[in-house]
This record gives sequence, C-alpha cells and structure tokens, in this order.
Amino acid sequence: MADSEVLPSLAGDPVAVEALLRAVFGVVVDEAIQKGTSASQKVCEWKEPEELKQLLDLELRSQGESQEQILERCRTVIRYSVKTGHPRFFNQLFSGLDPHALAGRIITESLNTSQYTYEIAPVFVLMEEEVLRKLRALVGWSSGDGIFCPGGSISNMYAVNLARYQRYPDCKQRGLRTLPPLALFTSKECHYSIQKGAAFLGLGTDSVRVVKADERGKMVPEDLERQIGMAEAEGAVPFLVSATSGTTVLGAFDPLEAIADVCQRHGLWLHVDAAWGGSVLLSQTHRHLLDGIQRADSVAWNPHKLLAAGLQCSALLLQDTSNLLKRCHGSQASYLFQQDKFYDVALDTGDKVVQCGRRVDCLKLWLMWKAQGDQGLERRIDQAFALARYLVEEIKKREGLELVMEPEFVNVCFWFVPPSLRGKQDSPDYHERLSKVAPVLKERMVKEGSMMIGYQPHGTRGNFFRVVVANPALTCADMDFLLNELERLGQDL
Amino acid sequence: MADSEVLPSLAGDPVAVEALLRAVFGVVVDEAIQKGTSASQKVCEWKEPEELKQLLDLELRSQGESQEQILERCRTVIRYSVKTGHPRFFNQLFSGLDPHALAGRIITESLNTSQYTYEIAPVFVLMEEEVLRKLRALVGWSSGDGIFCPGGSISNMYAVNLARYQRYPDCKQRGLRTLPPLALFTSKECHYSIQKGAAFLGLGTDSVRVVKADERGKMVPEDLERQIGMAEAEGAVPFLVSATSGTTVLGAFDPLEAIADVCQRHGLWLHVDAAWGGSVLLSQTHRHLLDGIQRADSVAWNPHKLLAAGLQCSALLLQDTSNLLKRCHGSQASYLFQQDKFYDVALDTGDKVVQCGRRVDCLKLWLMWKAQGDQGLERRIDQAFALARYLVEEIKKREGLELVMEPEFVNVCFWFVPPSLRGKQDSPDYHERLSKVAPVLKERMVKEGSMMIGYQPHGTRGNFFRVVVANPALTCADMDFLLNELERLGQDL
Repeated sequence: MADSEVLPSLAGDPVAVEALLRAVFGVVVDEAIQKGTSASQKVCEWKEPEELKQLLDLELRSQGESQEQILERCRTVIRYSVKTGHPRFFNQLFSGLDPHALAGRIITESLNTSQYTYEIAPVFVLMEEEVLRKLRALVGWSSGDGIFCPGGSISNMYAVNLARYQRYPDCKQRGLRTLPPLALFTSKECHYSIQKGAAFLGLGTDSVRVVKADERGKMVPEDLERQIGMAEAEGAVPFLVSATSGTTVLGAFDPLEAIADVCQRHGLWLHVDAAWGGSVLLSQTHRHLLDGIQRADSVAWNPHKLLAAGLQCSALLLQDTSNLLKRCHGSQASYLFQQDKFYDVALDTGDKVVQCGRRVDCLKLWLMWKAQGDQGLERRIDQAFALARYLVEEIKKREGLELVMEPEFVNVCFWFVPPSLRGKQDSPDYHERLSKVAPVLKERMVKEGSMMIGYQPHGTRGNFFRVVVANPALTCADMDFLLNELERLGQDL
Repeated sequence: MADSEVLPSLAGDPVAVEALLRAVFGVVVDEAIQKGTSASQKVCEWKEPEELKQLLDLELRSQGESQEQILERCRTVIRYSVKTGHPRFFNQLFSGLDPHALAGRIITESLNTSQYTYEIAPVFVLMEEEVLRKLRALVGWSSGDGIFCPGGSISNMYAVNLARYQRYPDCKQRGLRTLPPLALFTSKECHYSIQKGAAFLGLGTDSVRVVKADERGKMVPEDLERQIGMAEAEGAVPFLVSATSGTTVLGAFDPLEAIADVCQRHGLWLHVDAAWGGSVLLSQTHRHLLDGIQRADSVAWNPHKLLAAGLQCSALLLQDTSNLLKRCHGSQASYLFQQDKFYDVALDTGDKVVQCGRRVDCLKLWLMWKAQGDQGLERRIDQAFALARYLVEEIKKREGLELVMEPEFVNVCFWFVPPSLRGKQDSPDYHERLSKVAPVLKERMVKEGSMMIGYQPHGTRGNFFRVVVANPALTCADMDFLLNELERLGQDL
C-alpha cells in the first residue's frame, strides 16, 4: 500500500485506527509487560550511544512510513529501553509495574484531557479532590488543600513559593527586591531540588541554610535552632524549614516532632519533603517514622515512587483552608476561567497552579487504590520493609559485603568488598580502591543486562551501592539473586 | 474469588496481569477510541458535580475490589469524561486523537522511566535530542539546545530564567535582591503564563510591561520601543521580550522581524511563545506567519496542541550553544549524575532542568512523525487552515453570525446573534444582551453533549465563541454541523 495515500487518513478511519492500536498493544504486552517483568529476560540490553543511534534510525524524514515499519519501530524502542518494572531493577526510587496503575495511565492517555476545568475534566476534577483528601487524611488532616504537580521538585518549589507569599503577599506583584533577605533551612541530606528551587524562585541558593545531619542522615534539631539564630543575626528573615521523610540516599527520616517544635517557636512554615517516604503513612507498623507530620504546613508525597503509581504522580498537600494556592498562583485568565459559567466555577482548579494545561495524574493512583484497598497497599509497604530487612540480614551473613549502616527504610546501602581487598581495611589505599569497585560492577551488570543498582559517594564515604527495595513483585529469591550476582560479577576484582 | 487473596498477587502473576490489561484495553478501544471519536456519539455526558460524585463512587476504602468491579469503574470513568478526540470538541487548543501518538504514549507508560540519565533512558535521551534537533531546524537553527518541559507555561518560565541568568549569572546563587529592578515586555494578548511566571520566579508581576497590541491582536513594535524607554527612565533594566506566535484567543502572530530589530537595538533576549503557532513552521504555505523566528534566543513550542501529540509535549528550544541550560539549572547531584560512569555523562540531560524525575515526552511525537513524515504533518496544518477558511466563509454567508475579525490562523472567533437581537445593533442594551448568549448556548450544547466550543470576553468585546480547528479528522461536514447546531440551539433566543 502506498504510504502517502493511506496513512494520512488513519485519523478518520476507525477500522485502521483500531487495527494499529491493537497491534501496538500486542507488542506492548509481549515485549514491555511480559518480557519486561520476567526475571528470565534482561533488565536492559546495553548499546553504546553511537550504535544505538544507528539501530534506532532516529531521523525524522519527509516521507511517512508503513504500519509494518511503525510496528517494527515500536519493538525496537522497547527492546533497547530499560525495563523499570523488571525484578532486577533496583536503580531508582521507582520500580515495578502495577497493572491497575498502568490501566489508569492508558485510560488517561486515551482521554487526553487537561485538569484545569470541570468543563473538560469533570471526572478528574472530582477524583483529584478525593485522592488528595485521602492522602491528607493519612497525613492526619481533616481539611486542607492540595494539587498534583509534575514531580516532587516542583511540589517542593510550590511549598517555598506559598510560604513566602503567605508571609509577604506583596511579593507576587512586587517581587523579591523590596523584601528583606529570606532564609530557608534544610539538612545536608535533603534532595537537591531545594537548592534548584531556591535558584529558580529568585531567592538564590545562598538563601538555603544547610543544617547538620547526624550519622544516620537525620536533621539535627539543635543545629536547626542554631542556624536560625545565625541567619537572624546576619539580618536574614527565616521563613521555612524543609524536613525530609525518606532521604534519597540513606532513606533517613528527619525527627519531625522536634523540628515542628522549632518551627512553632520561630513561627516558620514547616514543609515536609516526603516524596519518597510519604507512602509509609499507609503502614500501621512503620508510620511512626513520620510522627509529627500532621504539624506540617505542607507535604510533598510522590506515589509514583514507593506505590508504583507511574511517572509522574506527585502530590503537594496543604493544611491551609484559606485558598492560599489560588491566591498565590491565580491570574483569572478570562478565556479559561470565565465567571459566568453554568456550574460552580470553584471546580475549575486550574488557577491553583503555575501551569496552564496540566496532566491528569490522579486516575492511575485512584484505580490502583480501588483495586488494592488501603489493606493491599499497606501489605506492599510492609513487604518492602520485610524484604529490605531480609536483604540486610543476608548482607551481614556474607563475606565481602559491608553495610553502610542499619537502614530504617527500604534503601539498603552497602559496599561490595572484592576478594583482593578483603581483610585489607588498614591498607592506605583501601578506601580509594574500594571506591572504584562499584562503577566497575555497575558497568558489568548493565552490559550483561542482569540487574541495575545505583551507586554514589556520600559525604566522606566512597562509592557504595544503594539497593532500593520497592517493586511490589519482589521476593526473597530476588534478594538472593542480587547478592549472588554481585559476587559473580566481582569475583575477579 | 476472594479479593484479598487474589488481588495483591497480581503484580507477580503474569497471566492475571495480561488478562486485566487486555480487558481494560478492550474497554479503551470500544469506549474511548471508537465511541469517543464517533460523531454519532456524544462529546460529553454532562452530570452535575454532586450526581457525578455518586455515579463515580470515588471513596478509597480499606478493601480492594474485584477485577469485574475495576473494569466497570474503567467504563464509568470513560463514559463521563469529555471526549477531546471527538470531531465536535472545539473547546481548547488541543483536540483530536492521533493513533500513532497514542501508541507512543502507551509505550511510554508501559516502560515508565525518567528522562534524566542515559543509564535508564538510553533510547529516549537520544530520541529527545533528535526530535529537538528537528524542531530547531524548522525554526531555522543548525545548532542549539533545548528540552521538553511539563507544558508551555513552564517552557516560558525557563526562557525568563535563562535570560536573567545569562545577564546576571550571580542571581543563581545570590538571588534577585542584589540586582537592579528587571523589566520584561510582552503584549497584552500574551498568554497568562508570562504573568504567572514572573510572580513565581520572584520578579513580581510588576516587572511585566504590557505592550499594546493592534486591532488584530499583534504586538505594536513602536509601543515596545516606547515601553523599553519608559522602563529605563524609571530605573529598570530591560532584559527580555516575549513575543507570541499564535495568541490564545485571536490566534494572532506578533511581527517577529520588527520585534527582533528592537531586541537587537537594545540587547534584549527575544523569546517567542509559539506554544500554539509553532507547528505552522511545518507548512511551506503558512510559515511566513513566523518570519523572523530564527532571530529568537528561545522558542516555546507545544506539539501537543496543533500536532495532537498528546498532553503534554512542550519543547523549549534555544539558540544557545554554551550549555546555558545546564549552567543555569544544574546542581550536580552526586547520587544521580556520577562523573565516574562508564559512558559519556554529557548524555545525562537531567541537570538541564529544575525537575528531577522527568516524563518521556518525545516518543509520542517521534512515532507520529515517523508515521506521517514532514509531508503528512504539513498536510494536516494546511488542512486545518483550509477548514478554518471554509468555516469563515460559511459564517459570512449565514444570517445571525458575525465574525470578530478575519482570522489569520485556525482560531475562528464570532458572535452568534440570536433571532431576537438581529437588526438591533443600535439598541442600547444590544451588547449586554449579546454577551449573555454564548454562556446560554454553551450550557445547552454541553448538557445535550452535541459539541463543545469555548467562549470568552476580550477587551471591550462581550462574550464570543472561539472555534479552534485543529483535530486532523475534521471535515467540512463537521463545520456545517457546528453552525447548524448553533442555530438549532439558539433559535428561541
């Protein structure tokens, strides 16, 4: 068939549209979902960038391609992509493939609407409200506000912007120039988005005062108090503390009660970056890690991480009931938020955000939650903790594996000490040599496609592995595999 | 079957996962894709919010639900959602359902990765680079940089942040307080995100100087020149002009050559917000509307609008080759952007953005482009212009329809003058009464579900309809229907 005749009419030809989509969906089920989550398949098929460019034939040309060519392209894209739902993908704070969440995402994509008005997103405006209400209830709030943002970094930025607006409403119109220098506080273990956000919002990274963390990675409240005093002595105005529930590397939880006390004494906005750890609130057994979170003014929580809802699903939750979000971000665009509509325009939530069009991020979480119930999700969290504990105990049993510390969350951090370095801790170049091990093993595992684990240096510590136990399909056998595979890959080092 | 036993194991049961996803996909094809794009079906099934809440049963409970219940929920969600791919949906700047783009979105969701490192997004890092290269080539640049952002508002914000950073690199660290007052310029027809962005970035809305637009909605370069002089006289430092290619309501294109001349004389960063109009660059016939865009420093272009790539797909394109994006936004997080990786870490593009995790927005556009070719996409643009022209001519022929102006793009703005107001233009309450017509018709069309068209007041003009002709599946018959339906709905007014 001649491409130029047939293809452009696809959009108006329901039979051809259905045939194409069914064929693509077949490829997705076989290649991405079945093979992509099977331990007998590779987690990735590594190619050097130049070779991959050739394989993908990325160039966009003048002529369109046949359906057969397009299907082959779909297969190629999936083949060389990393399978983040694979049981051997431990590389990021997200992993696993929840089928109900994926179902919600496919429906979201097929409906392709924007979350800004009730008019074009009636179901999702109401659903977002209900999902946010549920998340707030888990935080411990019976009222409040909130919104889904494109990722935790932007949720954190929103919190900073809201806190400064609440203190200085004029800054929306007049900007920061007329304000005193502002200071916000977070620990050295915080996510880098706090620094990025301070720069983006015009505060500058200097406005971020870095509070000490203890050896477990938790913010030291006494140092927070001290830093606030120092900032004030320098003429700056403290306005916000960002505590972290589940730090990125160590998985540490800041002591929220003590931090909330400090905030209360000084009249500061307490933001909790619970992007990673927020989902622990679902577990009766482990939610004590976040004790005090109900005293926060705002919470960032990413169900796309531990709950596997799918990128992106990041909620900013607020205790505020004074319409702060809309007052801070609103601009009343008359073409979108007409006040003479035939329904209650309070349902048009689009003016709460700095975006205009905004993706629907609630359905995937809602559908998964409906299927699992609180109980199913709680079991997942508890299971992740239990498997992380299993991994820790196995690490302790084996020679050549050294824990960075006892984890309190599902980030398990450890060194693989290769045979040639075992028992040589006192050698002067031990740490330097040990630091080079993780990058070598990472290269080997990726090139073999057998698994993916992240590594990083941290403070004065050299490179160590961080295994994130989050995929709900994991079992003890996967933990065993992981350690065996490290030993196999590193036996000659 | 007992939910509590069976459901939690789904994630580890490939047969059950496949069965669920195939069943959901069947619902999607039938309800969202086939019925959702069929003119014989409703574009929406309106329910009052309270009734809709009951129908949706949104509450998230302790117990999970059976697969049968979940499938019924999927049907309900789709049933009461607005069908933005329907040929009678003219309500927003996006519409239509491109099957190849949807296929790309489904693959994106099934792979569920983040765009930040080559390590976990090898295909998409290379693909994004190629797609951005293609978009830049259409702008007229043989080199440069760029990134996909979560929507045009954030793309516009990036441009403002980059422009101020280029002029005052210190502001990243030290913030705005130490800088002179800054001024940016845009026309009164610009998108509201420029104001929102100025507030969010700490500049304040006062920093936005509003330049006059002519009767067609185009920025008046002489007034821009005058405003720049005024700002300087007041002690402000002009640093950026944001021109618009395709305004939101009227679809006007600012005169880029004349504006670029002004920017060049004053050494200002020229940003072009071509979120809506950028796709016209694909049309040899119509791309003259953007003459001069190659002189911009940055361009925002949303292929999710006129090209129907799917929400969200918004590119920020830069002429810069000095790594400005990374210098301005980078923070070198050591856990993600390790410098001792085994591949070229320049491929880790995540530090170009203020987000951390970032969705894959390139595949849907790339796959659609591969299927259509430049030629197929060009035909779509040309067809949209032709259909808008057809609609304009039909409007002129009919009694009771009055064009706001001759459009130069695919936004067709007009009043429906109901029988009781025809010939009464000189009546003192004519404009007030006319202004109330569009909201009434809107309510009627939505409640019947026959079509959706946006309306708005604009300057001194009362409410008028804005039909956006963008869905690639539209035909002349859909234009005829639209006008007939307005007449039918408004015959008693």
